[in-house]
Amino acid sequence: MTAASICYDRIGELVTCVPELGDGSPLGVRTDAAVVVEDGVVVWVGDAGRAPATDHRVEVGPRCVLPGFVDSHSHVVFGGDRSAEFAARMAGEPYEAGGIRSTMAATRAADTAQLAERATALVQEMRRQGTGVVEIKSGYGGDVDTERRCLEVAAGLTEETTYLGAHVVPAAFDGDVDAYVSLVTGGMLEVCAPLARWVDVFVEEGAFDADQAREVLTAGMAVGLGARVHANQLRYGPGVQLACELGAASADHCTHLTREDVHALADAGTVATLVPGADFSTRSPVYPDARALIDAGATVAVATDCNPGTSFTTSMPFAIALAVRECGLTPSEAVWAATRGGAVALRRHDVGHLGVGAAAWLTVLDAPNHLHLAYRPGVPLAGPLAPPDA
Amino acid sequence: MTAASICYDRIGELVTCVPELGDGSPLGVRTDAAVVVEDGVVVWVGDAGRAPATDHRVEVGPRCVLPGFVDSHSHVVFGGDRSAEFAARMAGEPYEAGGIRSTMAATRAADTAQLAERATALVQEMRRQGTGVVEIKSGYGGDVDTERRCLEVAAGLTEETTYLGAHVVPAAFDGDVDAYVSLVTGGMLEVCAPLARWVDVFVEEGAFDADQAREVLTAGMAVGLGARVHANQLRYGPGVQLACELGAASADHCTHLTREDVHALADAGTVATLVPGADFSTRSPVYPDARALIDAGATVAVATDCNPGTSFTTSMPFAIALAVRECGLTPSEAVWAATRGGAVALRRHDVGHLGVGAAAWLTVLDAPNHLHLAYRPGVPLAGPLAPPDA
Repeated sequence: MTAASICYDRIGELVTCVPELGDGSPLGVRTDAAVVVEDGVVVWVGDAGRAPATDHRVEVGPRCVLPGFVDSHSHVVFGGDRSAEFAARMAGEPYEAGGIRSTMAATRAADTAQLAERATALVQEMRRQGTGVVEIKSGYGGDVDTERRCLEVAAGLTEETTYLGAHVVPAAFDGDVDAYVSLVTGGMLEVCAPLARWVDVFVEEGAFDADQAREVLTAGMAVGLGARVHANQLRYGPGVQLACELGAASADHCTHLTREDVHALADAGTVATLVPGADFSTRSPVYPDARALIDAGATVAVATDCNPGTSFTTSMPFAIALAVRECGLTPSEAVWAATRGGAVALRRHDVGHLGVGAAAWLTVLDAPNHLHLAYRPGVPLAGPLAPPDA
Repeated sequence: MTAASICYDRIGELVTCVPELGDGSPLGVRTDAAVVVEDGVVVWVGDAGRAPATDHRVEVGPRCVLPGFVDSHSHVVFGGDRSAEFAARMAGEPYEAGGIRSTMAATRAADTAQLAERATALVQEMRRQGTGVVEIKSGYGGDVDTERRCLEVAAGLTEETTYLGAHVVPAAFDGDVDAYVSLVTGGMLEVCAPLARWVDVFVEEGAFDADQAREVLTAGMAVGLGARVHANQLRYGPGVQLACELGAASADHCTHLTREDVHALADAGTVATLVPGADFSTRSPVYPDARALIDAGATVAVATDCNPGTSFTTSMPFAIALAVRECGLTPSEAVWAATRGGAVALRRHDVGHLGVGAAAWLTVLDAPNHLHLAYRPGVPLAGPLAPPDA
């Protein structure tokens, strides 16, 4: 039995994210286009009405089709509810990294089926809003068994699993960070590494300093994991420089960057992954300066940081609208950052674009062009046209 | 034939917006509740499982039900597209009131069926996101015939129609504001008043000054229209004081308020209707200070200002999230402002709450409580549980 081929025809605007397939811009936009998908892969892109014969044909009409969003930063495996903490923060309480511990307790208390049910529902919510590939981190376990269970849940939902044992130091360690780092780089890593593609660490006052973070990352890299870093979220700090020093795929947050940080990112080829939803929901006084990053030649991605404490959004369109409003990206740059940018941050060549050979995550907008993602904030315009297995 | 009665039972959290029906707070929240609707009207509110017998029963479960949002400020009758202008503004161009004229030209060129199709689609988009009652303004006509056509379209969609002949001075008047005010208060008013409940004016540099605005409003009030004002959007100005002086139901925008403006609103009982989506999409350097308004005793409403130039969102949840993040409302205050607050701004007693006798606009959230509207920004959580005619 061979897979059926489908032609998505008469697409008003097709965003390919391959410059030479379109108008030469990074988004590679072409109008009145068609895409042929076979066996979950894009096999042809061209003008409407000119596609080779296929088993099925879908008339898309005057809407925009773009690659499924690549959400390269999420924490959707957790237990508990933090809406009351959120409401308190909105009434004036500040956010510090320690709030993570309340979710840690609830996550340990939850059984794996409960964790999987919640995480699956959140990934489905993402998919309904046009997200294709999603990265999922552990980090609310804080002990070997719970971190393992969280990564098992994540691995059931995505290939892009990240071991974030070093999220915060669990209360049980009573501030003995070195003892916890020994666990994270020792027994916990041994159990978790086979379930993960990436290793990550939260570099922040109240979490891990540069030396501790370097230990965590190098231990993970030594067993074959790629590196990513939570860097420079709440204040200036060493996270970005460490990420660049170690050749991490991505430094995430980047809300507080020095000029040196910006140039280090550009020079190292480490992607700056902006998660403006977190800056929004923590009432950060500043947002990341994407303009400075792009002007310096750095690669910028945009992600949701979906998590119950500081950014409980699954919406890539919301992240795009914020990145335009607050971070200085143009609408087109923000769409690129949410698709191809996310793919670069995950070092994936097969997603985030619609060139021949790409996984066929196709997202459609209830709008004539991609500008509407920023032009119409908060409106649920994006949804799946087709996932690769359709 | 009598209308069927329906019991919505086992509601996890019911927001009534009637303090004495719930926890005594302005939101009147009660848990494990039930609502009975008959003939499009709420006829009973109480504990789950205790409702009188009804023809039908719907089990709602652990979700939040609240009154349909009251979007008291929108401009959904227009022609044309301004996504390119939006993209240019996001690349650095400032917003001034004159951009309205490009929509004016496109609106005049559109036939009434086209205007109705677009406006109907936008109102349906609002309804899918949980909005019940919507106010709709004219204002993209700028001549008698087009203003009339726009109000006819609006009147086909809502009772809350607003005559905004005085939006900007059309290009054809070549800057002769007084000549245009004569038309707006004369022949245009005569044709439009029978189609409108309200009269509105844009008080702003480049639009209308206080004396011109007073002429427009008093002429409208003389033929029985209620007054509302676009006030203090782009800079400090006389709009709020004028609204209070004339006893307008609402002063809308209120982004730049002096201490005197804040107290005038509280003293006059004129609602301050905040439209933070406009501040978002124009990249306003500041947002309205809702905290100062509430602390002074003013009534605050939140609306979308849905329009193609400066706030092309239909999402009341987005307006709520922004009002919390940027204007200093608590999540609960923002939900009140988007329901009962909007009703007060329209001087309606039968909507924006779920007391007995209210029109049965019931909105349901895919979330356990109302805090999630601000806690989960960008996520499409809200939708209709039932409109009054269900």
